[in-house]
Amino acid sequence: MINVIIIGAGNVATQLYRTFPRVKELDVIQVFNRNPQNLNFVKEPEKRISQLKDLKKADVYIFAIKDEAIGEIAEKLEDRKAIYLHCSGSEPMNILSKFTNHGVFYPLQTFSKNKPVHFEEVPLCIEANSEENLKFLKNLGSLLSDKVYEVSSEQRKALHLSAVFVNNFTNHLYTIAADYCKENELPFEILQPLIKETVAKIDTLPPFSAQTGPALRNDTKTISAHLELLNEDRKKIYNVLTESIQKLHGKKL
Amino acid sequence: MINVIIIGAGNVATQLYRTFPRVKELDVIQVFNRNPQNLNFVKEPEKRISQLKDLKKADVYIFAIKDEAIGEIAEKLEDRKAIYLHCSGSEPMNILSKFTNHGVFYPLQTFSKNKPVHFEEVPLCIEANSEENLKFLKNLGSLLSDKVYEVSSEQRKALHLSAVFVNNFTNHLYTIAADYCKENELPFEILQPLIKETVAKIDTLPPFSAQTGPALRNDTKTISAHLELLNEDRKKIYNVLTESIQKLHGKKL
Repeated sequence: MINVIIIGAGNVATQLYRTFPRVKELDVIQVFNRNPQNLNFVKEPEKRISQLKDLKKADVYIFAIKDEAIGEIAEKLEDRKAIYLHCSGSEPMNILSKFTNHGVFYPLQTFSKNKPVHFEEVPLCIEANSEENLKFLKNLGSLLSDKVYEVSSEQRKALHLSAVFVNNFTNHLYTIAADYCKENELPFEILQPLIKETVAKIDTLPPFSAQTGPALRNDTKTISAHLELLNEDRKKIYNVLTESIQKLHGKKL
Repeated sequence: MINVIIIGAGNVATQLYRTFPRVKELDVIQVFNRNPQNLNFVKEPEKRISQLKDLKKADVYIFAIKDEAIGEIAEKLEDRKAIYLHCSGSEPMNILSKFTNHGVFYPLQTFSKNKPVHFEEVPLCIEANSEENLKFLKNLGSLLSDKVYEVSSEQRKALHLSAVFVNNFTNHLYTIAADYCKENELPFEILQPLIKETVAKIDTLPPFSAQTGPALRNDTKTISAHLELLNEDRKKIYNVLTESIQKLHGKKL
């Protein structure tokens, strides 16, 4: 049995708390958060911990907290010869280097507290400070997910940045389209099949080859007509992305 | 039986040619394209037409061609008291006003010649120049798709523009992420579950509420770290979208 303590009470911590017990080799023995009110998602009251001094000895301590807080809490913890992991996309592994055994356990997915996730499909990006710890993490990861990737701190930063493009930025484009539909008394659902097909296409085609639209065809008439319909903020986005498409695909405005 | 003639040989024309015969009430009697070599997708050689004078009388003539060509070909056709439709997202309905009965049949989806589409899930945006023709088009549409929307020429333009945001622009963001992953020796597939979840989320949540990320949280440390990793073109996109997220969600850089 691997005994785990989760430090944190946000979306990732909540998902980990729900997922770990599904694996018979794993047991979550405590969940820590400074504010006890945030720990209501932990079913067993005796596992809710708000004082670091009450933390038990475990095999794994996993920091699922904001980037800024990782170093701060690590400083206050003594090294109990367990393995100490963080879940951040941006922070380097060595932020935990005060612990003999340390590493990274970064689940590359967007989590909401109220939407259950199929954790076996979540890519787990792992990194460890020794061969032995890496082996341990690979094993731990494969108990939880079918997709375990060994990823360096530098690569993880690149992934986190890529995630901003494919998740945060695309979601913002959906928001703009939803607002614009509303302004034109159109239901946003009318765009959903197109949104789904856009994603389905890149299962079989690299996105570079799947590109279509007025920017790619250099259809200046349509581009001008579109720009006339947009407010300043949307126009900026339209222009910057149109120019980037044309640059990458070797066409000029 | 409704006899249909398709004018065009591109992605939309090909999909229509494949879809119409699945409905027992519809028969494609001819497909027109100036260049006979483009008509090889039409199984029956006698239906391949390259001279406008060879067009038979039909109930429906459907223009599935480039925007620029619609007016040009319409000019050369005599009005045979059929109904004349175009499939363009941008062109107004009245580009076909020389015909007594005319309208628009705009399938809001991205089509590729080699990827079959479930047409019953494709939103069909229809518009017609009379109540009677609208009724006919609603009936025609509902034979083919579960999603028929009555959409004015102005609204259709807004939809076409929204489609650029949710399809062309998001696909370009995928391309950038794929390139960036490659530069960092990471497989693009590692981002696929995140891309899928981003889309799955907006089934249950409006995209405005689904927004997450450093721009939304005003996480200036992460934003600066990201900008340092990007080339000029990507930096422009990052900045413009970050500013737009903060503006819309009421935060300032």
